[in-house]
Amino acid sequence: MTLTLAQAQTMITGTLAEARARNAKPLAVIVLDAGAHPVAFAREDGASLYRFDIARAKAEGAAGMDADTAVLAERAKGNPTFFQSVTAAVGGRIAFSPGGVVIRDAAGTLIGAVGVSGDTGECDADCARAGIRAAGYLQEQQP
Amino acid sequence: MTLTLAQAQTMITGTLAEARARNAKPLAVIVLDAGAHPVAFAREDGASLYRFDIARAKAEGAAGMDADTAVLAERAKGNPTFFQSVTAAVGGRIAFSPGGVVIRDAAGTLIGAVGVSGDTGECDADCARAGIRAAGYLQEQQP
Amino acid sequence: MTLTLAQAQTMITGTLAEARARNAKPLAVIVLDAGAHPVAFAREDGASLYRFDIARAKAEGAAGMDADTAVLAERAKGNPTFFQSVTAAVGGRIAFSPGGVVIRDAAGTLIGAVGVSGDTGECDADCARAGIRAAGYLQEQQP
Amino acid sequence: MTLTLAQAQTMITGTLAEARARNAKPLAVIVLDAGAHPVAFAREDGASLYRFDIARAKAEGAAGMDADTAVLAERAKGNPTFFQSVTAAVGGRIAFSPGGVVIRDAAGTLIGAVGVSGDTGECDADCARAGIRAAGYLQEQQP
Repeated sequence: MTLTLAQAQTMITGTLAEARARNAKPLAVIVLDAGAHPVAFAREDGASLYRFDIARAKAEGAAGMDADTAVLAERAKGNPTFFQSVTAAVGGRIAFSPGGVVIRDAAGTLIGAVGVSGDTGECDADCARAGIRAAGYLQEQQP
Repeated sequence: MTLTLAQAQTMITGTLAEARARNAKPLAVIVLDAGAHPVAFAREDGASLYRFDIARAKAEGAAGMDADTAVLAERAKGNPTFFQSVTAAVGGRIAFSPGGVVIRDAAGTLIGAVGVSGDTGECDADCARAGIRAAGYLQEQQP
Repeated sequence: MTLTLAQAQTMITGTLAEARARNAKPLAVIVLDAGAHPVAFAREDGASLYRFDIARAKAEGAAGMDADTAVLAERAKGNPTFFQSVTAAVGGRIAFSPGGVVIRDAAGTLIGAVGVSGDTGECDADCARAGIRAAGYLQEQQP
Repeated sequence: MTLTLAQAQTMITGTLAEARARNAKPLAVIVLDAGAHPVAFAREDGASLYRFDIARAKAEGAAGMDADTAVLAERAKGNPTFFQSVTAAVGGRIAFSPGGVVIRDAAGTLIGAVGVSGDTGECDADCARAGIRAAGYLQEQQP
């Protein structure tokens, strides 16, 4: 199945609602489709200039590796040299911090990814999951 | 002054409302701030993969040259070699087709740019202007 | 729907069978999925080194713009400055010569693209279509 | 001597047969010639998007350094700063994990490389060697 713009916008709204409810720092949030191409993006007032690039790299890394960046960041700690070379091999389209979360349909198939940047990685990831939940999709990692 | 996310989202909504009113092909629309950094983006269902890159390059070119890409495209026809070198010099962050439209405040200062891709350049530019108008901003080019 | 490796390999076999039947020059052929990511590739003995890059750029351009590169090449003739800037905006992931052919399912949805390079653009495109036909998919352009 | 497409396809078939026999995760496998240019590639259904880039970087690194990436990964652990600079110097065309395996003729001359990505590096490398063996070539590293 294919992620729609309406679903992506619901995810962004849900992500930012969570961010404001917990008084997070200003965030940027991007939603990619199953091929890691942008569907929707928003950067809150006050979020710094590179938040777009970092949010996108988190989402691309999650979609490209089919795993949340929280998981990838843990793996990278144990094998930094390999993951540095992966970063170069994919042209920088990956970021090793929580906040890149895969979106799966009911069958478990990857249909996209959300990337969030602005606060701590853990907060970013929580907000991303809130956005995915708002659109009614399963989450990669349950708390 | 600084473009807010709320204003950028109003511009995207206004752009896509115009597109649907005239039955345009599926569009991608991006809003950049005064520093040419993304504030908001949306790609309609059915818009092809490269629409993000092209919409962004239109908006970046407009912000980067402080002129609508409709104007830049005309200039480029008369001096293609120079504008090809500009394209290379800015790393591809410019696209010579209408649809990149500068956003100015009441004093005429550049505060951002909208980029649209998906239909003809003229249609793209009309939709971008409709979005800017929806947010209450002056337009670069009056009809 | 998703293109499978088995289908992609059938397309490659069909493309190269057509090439040998018409005694074409040695070809390279790539099959991409709906997100423009590689699924399968083959370079015939004697095909030159850059055939991989050119075949891939044809297929990426077709998938990225949702149109055969034969069509894109015609459009580019009428507006070279714009399409040169598109080439830069997408980082070179497009090639303006026939041989990049979109793959559509029965509903007309893009599910991938085939790119062929080695002989004339017209021959390359014919071979690509033969490969897509071998896998039972509709073709973008009927003769 | 020169690696043929038929040999490369035999290596891919042999690699994937080994992968299925041991129930490995979905793999991507690439075969490069002596100049590190792609000859053949296949990505199994379910393998993530970046598997192409990582498999290719493993094979390129092996061909480029004339050594299996299992060896290079060990060296890199002892001198990460140097190998990070190598990664940058070669534009990311190397990946420090097992799975990039050189192909040699009977005289020991490098004639190509296989790169595999998708499971653990050790499993990837075992599958790559099975593919090279299927084509009748000597292996770099005997167990």
